[in-house]
Amino acid sequence: MKSSFLSLIRVDEAVDLAKSIAPAMPPERVLLDDALGRVLSEDVRSDIDIPGFDRSWKDGYAVFAADTTNATDSIPSMLKLKGRIDMGAGEKMSLSRGECFNIPTGGQMPDGADAVVMVEYTDEVGGDVLVKRPVAVGENVVKKGEDFPEGGVVFGRGEVLSASDLGALAAIGYYEVPVMKKPVVGIISTGIEIVPVDKKPKVGEVRDVNSYLCSAFVRKQGGIPLHLGIVRDNEEEMISLIRSGVDKCDLILISGGSSKDIRDITARVLYTEGEVLAHGVMLAPGKPTIIAKVKDTPVIGIPGHPAATYMVLSVIVRHLLVAMAGFSDTMKSVRKARLVTNISSEKGREEYVRIKLVAENEAMPLFGKSGLLNTIVESDGVIKIPAGREGLEAGEEVEVFLW
Amino acid sequence: MKSSFLSLIRVDEAVDLAKSIAPAMPPERVLLDDALGRVLSEDVRSDIDIPGFDRSWKDGYAVFAADTTNATDSIPSMLKLKGRIDMGAGEKMSLSRGECFNIPTGGQMPDGADAVVMVEYTDEVGGDVLVKRPVAVGENVVKKGEDFPEGGVVFGRGEVLSASDLGALAAIGYYEVPVMKKPVVGIISTGIEIVPVDKKPKVGEVRDVNSYLCSAFVRKQGGIPLHLGIVRDNEEEMISLIRSGVDKCDLILISGGSSKDIRDITARVLYTEGEVLAHGVMLAPGKPTIIAKVKDTPVIGIPGHPAATYMVLSVIVRHLLVAMAGFSDTMKSVRKARLVTNISSEKGREEYVRIKLVAENEAMPLFGKSGLLNTIVESDGVIKIPAGREGLEAGEEVEVFLW
Repeated sequence: MKSSFLSLIRVDEAVDLAKSIAPAMPPERVLLDDALGRVLSEDVRSDIDIPGFDRSWKDGYAVFAADTTNATDSIPSMLKLKGRIDMGAGEKMSLSRGECFNIPTGGQMPDGADAVVMVEYTDEVGGDVLVKRPVAVGENVVKKGEDFPEGGVVFGRGEVLSASDLGALAAIGYYEVPVMKKPVVGIISTGIEIVPVDKKPKVGEVRDVNSYLCSAFVRKQGGIPLHLGIVRDNEEEMISLIRSGVDKCDLILISGGSSKDIRDITARVLYTEGEVLAHGVMLAPGKPTIIAKVKDTPVIGIPGHPAATYMVLSVIVRHLLVAMAGFSDTMKSVRKARLVTNISSEKGREEYVRIKLVAENEAMPLFGKSGLLNTIVESDGVIKIPAGREGLEAGEEVEVFLW
Repeated sequence: MKSSFLSLIRVDEAVDLAKSIAPAMPPERVLLDDALGRVLSEDVRSDIDIPGFDRSWKDGYAVFAADTTNATDSIPSMLKLKGRIDMGAGEKMSLSRGECFNIPTGGQMPDGADAVVMVEYTDEVGGDVLVKRPVAVGENVVKKGEDFPEGGVVFGRGEVLSASDLGALAAIGYYEVPVMKKPVVGIISTGIEIVPVDKKPKVGEVRDVNSYLCSAFVRKQGGIPLHLGIVRDNEEEMISLIRSGVDKCDLILISGGSSKDIRDITARVLYTEGEVLAHGVMLAPGKPTIIAKVKDTPVIGIPGHPAATYMVLSVIVRHLLVAMAGFSDTMKSVRKARLVTNISSEKGREEYVRIKLVAENEAMPLFGKSGLLNTIVESDGVIKIPAGREGLEAGEEVEVFLW
């Protein structure tokens, strides 16, 4: 076994490396009702003009705008009421100068009419309508195809579908939606001290926290977690889990035990069973990260401190999952804030510091021990201190990468 | 039928009213793996001290801190190596002055030892260890119970569970998690022009957009949407859907057709079948909102313009769902930004304006027609113009409520 642990790579190099081995997810079709948060696998286009006809956007009267010029409360324009337009009637009316139709919101504009006067500015008197305000051509009318024109691309491949997007997909007829398959992510926990969550740990043992950090993180990022198992210290078992895992999974995450010996077993197995592309990242906590490939399936070895696990998930694995899912990371996960205290940092080394957002978008660094779970539970995200800086100052604006 | 449509209430009154009729969700237990985003129904406590023993937080040597005072590279402290501590061994070692144990990260501290010297600052020479830096008492040691003490409340009732929270729940032994049940939300679309999504609309017809806006929104807010059906113009059908719906659902959303006639049918049915608490809200778009109760089940009548539907969902229904789910709305859904242009507004009326976030947290108002879907698809959220203001100015800091 040759260890390249000492040649640490930078976080951005690790991210690029991880992305370079991300398998693309094949497309599938899901029901519109199940498409929230999914990623479009192809451009979607409208099969119809929306609206399909010139529609009124208000309750009122469809008119020739020119017939209302100079209309006022005291000298209204008087138009002949030619009829009432019903919703969904399908039959198209037509209008001549000096006439108007009563029209509901959403009603189809009659031929000739080019504007709608809101009912508030009218009085119906017998067979006539008094219009007390002028309207401009096009006023209160939504033109055919103004919302989405037939054949136009409504969303491009890679769009992450929001609730309002699903409304638009309904409008353009996507009862089924073409999306990327969710990646299946196998999860292995290692460490001779690890016991399942439903067991009470004896002295020297700890419960399997990392499997759940990984599975919840995968789910949050739109993947399907698959628990492959806990390996205490048996190398054969690890090999067999990895071999069967690569056939079922698009990605495997192995969170190591916290001892160096166990980490060595994970590394040794990855060196013999696959190809180790990087072993060690300039990330604190999170240095002993392994990026490997077994039979074309990316395998990420993650250090076993829960806080280090979460950092590696958020800073490296996240980008891998995003690349697999085929979307660009959204702006909503980054937020500007002001530092409330100075943070010192070793120059020449990129550092990530967990922070908590406090009132008025202020970022408070949490300097907990990296092994403690409560520091990740309390934090809202991390900020990056670039390698070229010796620290950040209170009052400085920082970008918070929300967990 | 008595209509109270003309007595409009303010948005905050509508929100309070909706919250006042929100039924509380009963608790249930779900597997830890399924608990992401769920809301705790009770306080959860740790059943054990975490860590369960004083642990080393680094690879190195467990020592008496006092034995390292004044240690330097040139004049190291020499300690006798008493042995090596293995992970998960369970057997507790003990240490005398002048001795040390080799200890891995996570290893159990021997009795007597009060600090760990990192391996980087030591040399092993035969049976001795040269320590080249002093350590303080407690350095590189995580004390028993320091992360979570036995019996301590780790999360309170109402906590929305994040990925890192699930890691902490694993640590404290919650293989099953007590959460609030998800509310089942029945959805009815009305309007004689409405056709199902998989049909191609004829002239005068539109596809059922609002059912999907509602269902996706409900899902996003942690509820379970249930499509009750489309009612074109049949009052009996509406009554029967509502009657069967209130038995199956914790909340019913009825999105009206866009015409006044149809809206009247919805209102008339709600006036006869239940109790209408409010009819009309000072919200644009979104004025013709109905807040009602049928047999103790809240029923919200929502206007049929998709953009108005989405506004009412985001500004009113959201709070109702949050109240039902039993959590406080999170800070992540609000974000500060600067307006890029002036917005004028009618004084005395609270207004909500859709905005798009542009580079560097700037908010660009979108002044689209409220009936257009593309304005909600393009927007990231809304800002509120208080009733007392005549508008907002370019450069002003605003709070964006993200969709």
